[in-house]
Amino acid sequence: MTIMGTRKLEALPREESLRLLRSVSVGRLVFTHLALPAIRPVNHVVDGDQVVIRAYVGTAIDTAVGNNSGMVVAYEADLIDPDTHLGWSVIIVGRACRLSGGEADHFRDLLQPWVEGGSDDVIAIRADMVDGFRLVG
Amino acid sequence: MTIMGTRKLEALPREESLRLLRSVSVGRLVFTHLALPAIRPVNHVVDGDQVVIRAYVGTAIDTAVGNNSGMVVAYEADLIDPDTHLGWSVIIVGRACRLSGGEADHFRDLLQPWVEGGSDDVIAIRADMVDGFRLVG
Repeated sequence: MTIMGTRKLEALPREESLRLLRSVSVGRLVFTHLALPAIRPVNHVVDGDQVVIRAYVGTAIDTAVGNNSGMVVAYEADLIDPDTHLGWSVIIVGRACRLSGGEADHFRDLLQPWVEGGSDDVIAIRADMVDGFRLVG
Repeated sequence: MTIMGTRKLEALPREESLRLLRSVSVGRLVFTHLALPAIRPVNHVVDGDQVVIRAYVGTAIDTAVGNNSGMVVAYEADLIDPDTHLGWSVIIVGRACRLSGGEADHFRDLLQPWVEGGSDDVIAIRADMVDGFRLVG
């Protein structure tokens, strides 16, 4: 299709970016696995300055964080219209670490697992860098 | 919300994965930029065994590919229901390279730029590895 008019990419402030991230439940974790770029869609909750996800034990996400406690990952969520391509995207970059005990249980209650069964870890990603933009028509 | 019933993650064959990737126009390029994991939403076309995108000259994507011709990147697209979390995700991993001449012009005609103005490069990503899954209820 042909897109008419003037379109503009607007950078979003940190707080607005985190608010948009909180408004959706699905995003994508970006990390390095076996020295290759890796990405997996997951669901998340935003808690203050961190994004929290669940990862099944033994999966690429879990292994990557497990072998490198405090490894730097990226997390992205967006809402982009498939026809007009207008919308927003928010990317955070920060250290990922495994939560435990009551803190992990708290987030397990908030995060619905996608597949039944199996044990899982709860991983928090610190929003050290937040990069949001909105494409407006 | 609570999700009922048994849910299953199905691996998809390569051809079905590429067909799903062809069925949408927006995805996310995953690469390394300044030694950090980076991700940018873009639009794409699938041409045989490669995914082709446009990147503005001087942006993170363009710089990353420019400094490392043949660098390995990942590309992901998904269609996941925000409520049920049912849907699919396809990830390809492969070498990215800049196209030129008539080949680049051909894909410029097929790929609508998101923002007006500025010169851009056309980047092809080889689908060396294809990893697709579908979450069914």
